[in-house]
Amino acid sequence: MSRKLRLMIPGPTPLPPEVSAALARPMVGHRARDFAALTERLHGKLQQVMQTKNEVFILTSSGTGGLEAAIANTVNPGDKVLALVAGKFGERFRDLARTYGAEVVELQFPWGTPVDLDAVAEALRKHPDLKMVLATQNETSTGVVHDIRGLGYLTAQHAAVLAVDAVSGLGGIDLPADEWGVDILVTASQKALMTPPGLAMISLSAKAWALVDQCRAPRYYFSLPAAKKALAKWNTAYTPAVSLFFAQEAALDLILAEGLEQVFARHRLLGQAVREGVKALGLELLPAPEAAASPVVTAVKSPDGIPADDLRKLLFDRYGVLFAGGQAALKGRIFRIAHMGYVDKLDVLTALGALELALNDLGYKVPLGSGVAAAQRVFLGGVV
Amino acid sequence: MSRKLRLMIPGPTPLPPEVSAALARPMVGHRARDFAALTERLHGKLQQVMQTKNEVFILTSSGTGGLEAAIANTVNPGDKVLALVAGKFGERFRDLARTYGAEVVELQFPWGTPVDLDAVAEALRKHPDLKMVLATQNETSTGVVHDIRGLGYLTAQHAAVLAVDAVSGLGGIDLPADEWGVDILVTASQKALMTPPGLAMISLSAKAWALVDQCRAPRYYFSLPAAKKALAKWNTAYTPAVSLFFAQEAALDLILAEGLEQVFARHRLLGQAVREGVKALGLELLPAPEAAASPVVTAVKSPDGIPADDLRKLLFDRYGVLFAGGQAALKGRIFRIAHMGYVDKLDVLTALGALELALNDLGYKVPLGSGVAAAQRVFLGGVV
Repeated sequence: MSRKLRLMIPGPTPLPPEVSAALARPMVGHRARDFAALTERLHGKLQQVMQTKNEVFILTSSGTGGLEAAIANTVNPGDKVLALVAGKFGERFRDLARTYGAEVVELQFPWGTPVDLDAVAEALRKHPDLKMVLATQNETSTGVVHDIRGLGYLTAQHAAVLAVDAVSGLGGIDLPADEWGVDILVTASQKALMTPPGLAMISLSAKAWALVDQCRAPRYYFSLPAAKKALAKWNTAYTPAVSLFFAQEAALDLILAEGLEQVFARHRLLGQAVREGVKALGLELLPAPEAAASPVVTAVKSPDGIPADDLRKLLFDRYGVLFAGGQAALKGRIFRIAHMGYVDKLDVLTALGALELALNDLGYKVPLGSGVAAAQRVFLGGVV
Repeated sequence: MSRKLRLMIPGPTPLPPEVSAALARPMVGHRARDFAALTERLHGKLQQVMQTKNEVFILTSSGTGGLEAAIANTVNPGDKVLALVAGKFGERFRDLARTYGAEVVELQFPWGTPVDLDAVAEALRKHPDLKMVLATQNETSTGVVHDIRGLGYLTAQHAAVLAVDAVSGLGGIDLPADEWGVDILVTASQKALMTPPGLAMISLSAKAWALVDQCRAPRYYFSLPAAKKALAKWNTAYTPAVSLFFAQEAALDLILAEGLEQVFARHRLLGQAVREGVKALGLELLPAPEAAASPVVTAVKSPDGIPADDLRKLLFDRYGVLFAGGQAALKGRIFRIAHMGYVDKLDVLTALGALELALNDLGYKVPLGSGVAAAQRVFLGGVV
């Protein structure tokens, strides 16, 4: 038989069958009535999932394109921007701001730890002229969730706009954007939103639009004023990825049918089960404190003597299970198990069962079934 | 029964069943070995279809994103750029250059006519400091093909780099890029390449890379140096639209199996048949001379008293046939019948048969079957 692939990386994530079916639908005219109606429906559903009343723009690009839209439409050379960096995606947002000439004030936090709000408050006090704060909701590279609610509270009292990279967390981790004061919210299709890569979504508050109105950076494809003009007719400025629009609607329908609260609870439960499972195997989590650990991706330190990438290679070659590796300084030291999107309890047991096998294959003896059992206990306990 | 849609617009174009099936394939890891192997295969197949030995970069964006990559990686503020404008897409390329601060020398040609090479030669003589010439292979808005071979000949003797928007023509109209001296070639997935929208492809000659090396424009998502670095490992700089990669390979396999020469001949034949068909109905083509008419999209003047958009609306509402309309000054005055990609002889008869019905419905009496017959004569004659 052909090998079964178990995709457990933080994007692309597995597709529900309804989404796969939508992908195969025939092409339609992207300027025709029916497609405008789809765009309007998709917009309303995205507003629900993004928990915002602001307009949502869908860009045909990866999430990084959405982050670039956030910067290219707001930053003028010399603008002071606070970047909160505690992993690879925090670095990316910072690098984007630098690319557009921002004077970046950078706060670094150890990879695996959450942003320290006191340090942010101090930076905001010290720099009243900050135009923007760049934050990451779910730092995919470390499996840490940052306190967006706290950051929203701090920036609401400051002139700065809060821009949040929610690419890997949105739709899996609660983020009431308007309620928490998120001014620019960026996400993408291929993580918890259960759609193939190729769509980025961005919404902006009135406070953020004030920056757009005075921005002089060159941009065309990612121009938000062009996107806004097109959206007034339920259109996109440039040809959209039609198939992905179909697929994204099918995925949002599944999320809304399950209910946002239930979706978030499911991810919390799966995250807890994975963490209990790997701890039962004697492995150590990267995130510290564990309270900051992500509900959608779990970063685990590889045990002494077992290079993480050897473990990953064996898991993939022998069992068809794909975990993500570590990035930058964490390369070879951690592996990451994603549990975002179309993932359920039995997928977690599968991941842990495969991990137990692979560790034993590599000579690192763990009691068979012990990680699986720890996760099962979480599920039977039912307390999230 | 549900209504059958006949999509006859210049992108998105109808999908072959092999392409639809590829779209529905499960997700894979975009950093895993198998995907790198796919990227390598896709690269080789794109080089064949783009007729270049230069590296080809696949960007997850619409064709406009590819055009922006061409500009954002080459143009410094104040650089002198020659824009050849004879339609909406010529304008777009010009506008992109202006967005990045180019000093644009613009040559305008009436919409519906081809670029005049003498005027270009004169501009090149007059402006020895031109850095780049921006041209459109197939001007979708007017159904005119410009003489890229002639432009390549002229620019080869000049310091300027020739950048060609081949978004709507490549894969349908012969364009031996290296042989003709095209330095920057941009195309996209959703036209003659028979794949849904969402991928842009760009290749650059050594002469063009010299501009990239000294370019200071801000760019990140569309950075070609980043794309080049990633391609060395058969990777993309940012998460690619995985499903569209699958689909694009399936479509390229069909094109290469048919054979490029045969694909171009098929499009020439279909174009000729459509033109003979509409002329037999007494309608007038927009392109003049007809020798400049596009093999992949035919622009037709709507007859007196019949607003083109009324005709299009009736065709869509009553027969499920979607033609494109006119843009800018041509809005309401022309309709455009696309015959690019997954299109055969009987599709042309369908289009003409529907057009005859719709014209009669609107009170513009044409002899039934006469357009169809004219196209049939072209097919039976078999001379392209």
